[in-house]
Amino acid sequence: MTKDRLYLYDTTLRDGQQTQGVQFSTGDKMEIAEALDALGVDYIEGGWPGANPTDSAFFEARPETRATFTAFGMTKRAGMSAENDDVLAAVLNAGTSAVCLVGKTHDFHVERALGITLPENVENIAKSVAHIVAQGREALFDAEHFFDGYKANPAYALECLRAAHDAGARWSVLCDTNGGTLPVEIGRIVSEVIAAGIPGAQLGIHTHNDTDNAIAGSLAAIDAGVRQVQGTLNGLGERCGNANLIALIPTLLLKEPYASLYETGVSMTALKGMTRTARLLDDILNRVPQKQSPYVGASAFAHKAGLHASAIIKDPSTYEHVDPSAVGNSRIVPMSNQAGQSNLRERLREMDVQVEKGNPALGRILDVVKARETEGYSYDTAQASFELLARRELGQLPDFFEVKRYKVTVERRKNKENRMVSLSEAVVVVKIGGEKRLSVSESMDETGSDRGPVNALAKALAKDLGPYQAAIDEMRLVDFKVRITQGGTEAVTRVIIDSEDAQGARWSTVGVSPNIVDASFEALLDAINWKLLRDRVQIPQRALAGE
Amino acid sequence: MTKDRLYLYDTTLRDGQQTQGVQFSTGDKMEIAEALDALGVDYIEGGWPGANPTDSAFFEARPETRATFTAFGMTKRAGMSAENDDVLAAVLNAGTSAVCLVGKTHDFHVERALGITLPENVENIAKSVAHIVAQGREALFDAEHFFDGYKANPAYALECLRAAHDAGARWSVLCDTNGGTLPVEIGRIVSEVIAAGIPGAQLGIHTHNDTDNAIAGSLAAIDAGVRQVQGTLNGLGERCGNANLIALIPTLLLKEPYASLYETGVSMTALKGMTRTARLLDDILNRVPQKQSPYVGASAFAHKAGLHASAIIKDPSTYEHVDPSAVGNSRIVPMSNQAGQSNLRERLREMDVQVEKGNPALGRILDVVKARETEGYSYDTAQASFELLARRELGQLPDFFEVKRYKVTVERRKNKENRMVSLSEAVVVVKIGGEKRLSVSESMDETGSDRGPVNALAKALAKDLGPYQAAIDEMRLVDFKVRITQGGTEAVTRVIIDSEDAQGARWSTVGVSPNIVDASFEALLDAINWKLLRDRVQIPQRALAGE
Repeated sequence: MTKDRLYLYDTTLRDGQQTQGVQFSTGDKMEIAEALDALGVDYIEGGWPGANPTDSAFFEARPETRATFTAFGMTKRAGMSAENDDVLAAVLNAGTSAVCLVGKTHDFHVERALGITLPENVENIAKSVAHIVAQGREALFDAEHFFDGYKANPAYALECLRAAHDAGARWSVLCDTNGGTLPVEIGRIVSEVIAAGIPGAQLGIHTHNDTDNAIAGSLAAIDAGVRQVQGTLNGLGERCGNANLIALIPTLLLKEPYASLYETGVSMTALKGMTRTARLLDDILNRVPQKQSPYVGASAFAHKAGLHASAIIKDPSTYEHVDPSAVGNSRIVPMSNQAGQSNLRERLREMDVQVEKGNPALGRILDVVKARETEGYSYDTAQASFELLARRELGQLPDFFEVKRYKVTVERRKNKENRMVSLSEAVVVVKIGGEKRLSVSESMDETGSDRGPVNALAKALAKDLGPYQAAIDEMRLVDFKVRITQGGTEAVTRVIIDSEDAQGARWSTVGVSPNIVDASFEALLDAINWKLLRDRVQIPQRALAGE
Repeated sequence: MTKDRLYLYDTTLRDGQQTQGVQFSTGDKMEIAEALDALGVDYIEGGWPGANPTDSAFFEARPETRATFTAFGMTKRAGMSAENDDVLAAVLNAGTSAVCLVGKTHDFHVERALGITLPENVENIAKSVAHIVAQGREALFDAEHFFDGYKANPAYALECLRAAHDAGARWSVLCDTNGGTLPVEIGRIVSEVIAAGIPGAQLGIHTHNDTDNAIAGSLAAIDAGVRQVQGTLNGLGERCGNANLIALIPTLLLKEPYASLYETGVSMTALKGMTRTARLLDDILNRVPQKQSPYVGASAFAHKAGLHASAIIKDPSTYEHVDPSAVGNSRIVPMSNQAGQSNLRERLREMDVQVEKGNPALGRILDVVKARETEGYSYDTAQASFELLARRELGQLPDFFEVKRYKVTVERRKNKENRMVSLSEAVVVVKIGGEKRLSVSESMDETGSDRGPVNALAKALAKDLGPYQAAIDEMRLVDFKVRITQGGTEAVTRVIIDSEDAQGARWSTVGVSPNIVDASFEALLDAINWKLLRDRVQIPQRALAGE
């Protein structure tokens, strides 16, 4: 049996940006677009060119993708031609091969929100789509409020859809804009639309999660015949979010009847990147990943109930509906030290640390990791800190240097021009090879602006590490993430620092403390120690001889 | 038309406790049981008496409830009578009027996990249920892995169900234990079970969210005829969680066809407590509430897109599927670079700030917001900072006090016991009513551990605000979020602080700076200023007279 092709349309960069508190930078958008392309979605909607400076800048700088890059906009306004609508022109000027225009299909919205006549709106749709097609672009029509519109006035909603279809739209996308339509109703209406003559192969579905049914609504639409699904990574989006592609894609690839009936652009190999992609987005947004997320959450394959855990050890299929490795996730079974140790050896081998089976250090490493995770540490991304921790237990970590003490001061007061300015200053005292070294640094950058206490501390620490100076000088701090792991006054800070060297190596380290300066300092120390370890820097003789 | 009665069965205290990281105390369980009872669920499953000390203690101390209090356990073990099984006896000894027993219905599990014969398992079910009924209790049977079992061996799965039914079970609950069954399949199998002779009025549904379809699966089962639904508050539960009653109940009461077809024990008045109940559970678990939660999340009725926000002002039904007040939630039209003057006036009106149309301050406010968002500020959540900004432009913000300067020191060194310890100290100088006040604080908490420079600064600032002291003393910092808005050495820090007062008011403020201490200080100042503004605190006369 040949499978039907199902197209995946991602709108993380547009509808996803409507999430409260989410504001992507151009750099964020680049990174997300590349992750989406690696996953294998068919369309990447990049934003609305002309609507704001970030979106415009992103379209200028957008990466080359295998996926069809799509600009979003709206149908032309009444009272002007498609050619003369400057908002539409800005969308076309982005030069993407596909353009998706949102337009009204609900009579109430046409009259109430737009304040134009029903025929004017139909004409706006037809003319706008025809204009895009005439420019040689692929046209998509987002039928806003389609389901509510269809329930209120089916003839008019269909007329709007037909206008887009007849004008040459490759896809007409049925949007449940308010998120209130339940799956059964979506299925029924999609069937009626297809029966009315719009082919399912040219229909898409766009749902929202306001009743927690966005995925189910998408599946109901596919069952009824649509062949394009819109969604976002991690279900970002306006209000309660859009259909979560991270949860939907594994269902389409792994679960019946979908796995047998359809094929998508996502390969089984790319599917293994699903967990990593979900975490990448959380990293960009500096969000704590949701443990209970379907397929990719840290708890998605965690078996806590005693009855479950003991059966899982006999046969994982007893309490798992899919294999966690298929989506790049892993099983958590409390007290399964066997599995823990072999995973650990595998992970260490990837870092070129060979440990024989049964080495008692393996158990100690697992214990330390567990205790530290309870304190707020996280070694998912901070691989360099993890390696240092493991090598310490294995007796393979040299004492490159010792920090005796440090002191940081942040002062804010009026300057000579009577403006409030701040200045940070750090003093660090280290001992290398028995020799004490005292360094002091300010946090001022070239523009005279204060970069804060962590910056001052990093500079003081890196200023005079004597025999290690060459290795340190080429290090650069490239990213700095702060997360509060417990709320309120008990707040504990986790700092993750990404560093880079002249050879392009990049490594992440972690520090945890209720004091953010301490947490940062710990991560900085790990970053330096890892670099010295990797460069196999020699410790000066006096140090080896002891104090 | 008379409505069918739909029964709600809550398992937050049992299956909900299987969530990774969740461990309820007896006190927590009491509080949750009372909230569930106030909501109007029909059954409260309290735990497994005898399985652990907390559950046993809770059953002894359990509150009086209108809901049927239910003890959970498992069917008797093979090779002993129901009367002689001590595990079952412990469950019965809890003395609840209803008892729910889980038992196997999937042949694979009977043979593989239990290691007994298929007929032995059927007998265990029948005898256990009969034993409960003989004791005058209401018996419920949780048919574990029912859907997987039915797919593998429909005759055997039905035989198990029939054994429970014929022995007098009031309810047989079809459990999708592994969470892998999709809604359409659930609907089909439920229909077949009813066609096979088990009445829908005695069937329940128990789903998990492993494919993000727990709610849709529950609805599909109701559509097919079951009349009991199991779930948990906020979707707690093993792995990805159970069906979320907080999202399901509003759909059953507010959405068609459910609102017309069914009645539950939840009144429209109790429904208004839904948002509060969801937050109560998060408070108990010390979790940050999920903003995008259907119906009850802080973003569930937040309208960020410019097109949406302007239409909402004309008519909320344009972009809302239900009225937020029906579930005790409220609408948010956040500020963002897409919002215009009419959104702004609406937003201000909700803060009791009346501004006439065309007031030039509106344009200035939008400009300031835009400029600040470019710097990294975000006013989506930091509503209090937004109000201060607006009032400043409108000339409605009193100068409560002025910070002349501050200084914070973080020092890390060896203590007397030769251990590395850190200590932070802050000095703040403020001027109130022409009077200078100097305060100093350390960051040490009761346990002697250093909470860092921001803590020291907050304490010093709040230590002596003279005439404002009463208002400040009842303020509490409840959450602290840090986000780096640009990567690398150019890192700019955004700090968002949530504060609370004795009346339960909660407000969020924002600060931005390359220096994290500065950013935090700015957010702290806003938090205090907003509190003084809200309390209409009078400025001492000397201040009004100027310096």
